[in-house]
Amino acid sequence: MSKHSFTLPLHVRYGETDQMGVVHHASFISYLEEARTRFMEARGQSYAELERAGIGLPVRSLSISYKSAARFGEELEVEVWVERLRRASVTFGYEIRCAAKDRIILTAEVELACAELSGEELKVCPLPAVLESALGGE
Amino acid sequence: MSKHSFTLPLHVRYGETDQMGVVHHASFISYLEEARTRFMEARGQSYAELERAGIGLPVRSLSISYKSAARFGEELEVEVWVERLRRASVTFGYEIRCAAKDRIILTAEVELACAELSGEELKVCPLPAVLESALGGE
Amino acid sequence: MSKHSFTLPLHVRYGETDQMGVVHHASFISYLEEARTRFMEARGQSYAELERAGIGLPVRSLSISYKSAARFGEELEVEVWVERLRRASVTFGYEIRCAAKDRIILTAEVELACAELSGEELKVCPLPAVLESALGGE
Amino acid sequence: MSKHSFTLPLHVRYGETDQMGVVHHASFISYLEEARTRFMEARGQSYAELERAGIGLPVRSLSISYKSAARFGEELEVEVWVERLRRASVTFGYEIRCAAKDRIILTAEVELACAELSGEELKVCPLPAVLESALGGE
Repeated sequence: MSKHSFTLPLHVRYGETDQMGVVHHASFISYLEEARTRFMEARGQSYAELERAGIGLPVRSLSISYKSAARFGEELEVEVWVERLRRASVTFGYEIRCAAKDRIILTAEVELACAELSGEELKVCPLPAVLESALGGE
Repeated sequence: MSKHSFTLPLHVRYGETDQMGVVHHASFISYLEEARTRFMEARGQSYAELERAGIGLPVRSLSISYKSAARFGEELEVEVWVERLRRASVTFGYEIRCAAKDRIILTAEVELACAELSGEELKVCPLPAVLESALGGE
Repeated sequence: MSKHSFTLPLHVRYGETDQMGVVHHASFISYLEEARTRFMEARGQSYAELERAGIGLPVRSLSISYKSAARFGEELEVEVWVERLRRASVTFGYEIRCAAKDRIILTAEVELACAELSGEELKVCPLPAVLESALGGE
Repeated sequence: MSKHSFTLPLHVRYGETDQMGVVHHASFISYLEEARTRFMEARGQSYAELERAGIGLPVRSLSISYKSAARFGEELEVEVWVERLRRASVTFGYEIRCAAKDRIILTAEVELACAELSGEELKVCPLPAVLESALGGE
């Protein structure tokens, strides 16, 4: 998809299915979250450390287009890349595929704001330079 | 929002929060699902019965715009209405508010396809007349 | 079950089922948690306020005996009571039933420790007098 | 723990934490489930195939003793073994540890019944020979 993307192999958990016999549509949200966490780690930015430094990345918007069902027992691939990088936000693009069949499960975009975690209310702030550099891949 | 909308009062569960101290962004997906299920019930269409009759409503797309954080202990209101009704799909619109403060938590749209559940693969089909009538409110 | 018990009516959410066509066994954990939260509230002790005062109730042990399956569309009743009250812990007993059929879904026990939330590590401490009194019902 | 055990390395997902800043106690249930699924696969018995053959393993009872908190960013190890094998049920034993610190997070036991999935109600049946052999490890 992008030459700077990251792909997380993922094993569907039984409890992530629903009675329609497929992965429940909300279960994919945790796949997206886990993929961008690992992507950031691979770029040298641990999300846990970012929070310890007082910076969080709350989700501002999210859109998902479901293409086909995923099933328990299937091996999935979650591909993630930086779609847009702004002063105080970052948007990740995603494609989830069934590894065996090269079938697309969904495409998605998730926009995260950068925010100071100190106060009662989250306060938007510019991306720290080290995070911007990790996400920009330069 | 709409004169034909339905509002579900909802109590945040502790396990629906995350370590940022707010309701996790994926937890809202189950709120949206529960609100449209109750909305359909209130209109005379039980979703459990629909499935027993061989018809399901898998999610085709979903978009959420998060406006402010929700917290454990807050009473929420999930308002839902029919945004668009097509031959083989329905799109619900949503607004989640904090009841006490009249603060908007998020707005969302969820598009569901109508599908026959019989085979291995879900097969899109027209909305049954009784469902169309329940959603149209005529 | 107990003359001092509390019963929470509960509507199964679609996403709480799994592909066996029944409520997934982990989904009940959030029902137990929600029932004891409401029970405490009914006794005058908000759990959110308890945490704001620096006291948490982390789960120390949990045991569940599943008796029959619960299904989407069923109305459940979650009954909760104080099974044992100690200096620095409280054990809740539970019975979940299908409201329509008076069928028992499960019985459970959950032991919570009382802990100070201030430091990096949770530190066990005696139950505050106000909490002890709320749970004791005297 | 057991010479016939299986250990699954596991990365905590952000959404599995709660506002106490630790992994929510219910999140571990999906770790236990995933570990026994992988254990069975490693022994040559796919759980997905078992269900396609009309046999399910619903949870009959579950007990967990929580020893210490797990946190986002920690690498966990979920060790699982067969604790008891009966004619129509199997009990798995578990220990979850923090990989870096060799700290025990919890110990657990989960008993599964063997059941035919065909009818409306789950009907207990003897373990198929191939499953019994996979779990017995002989």
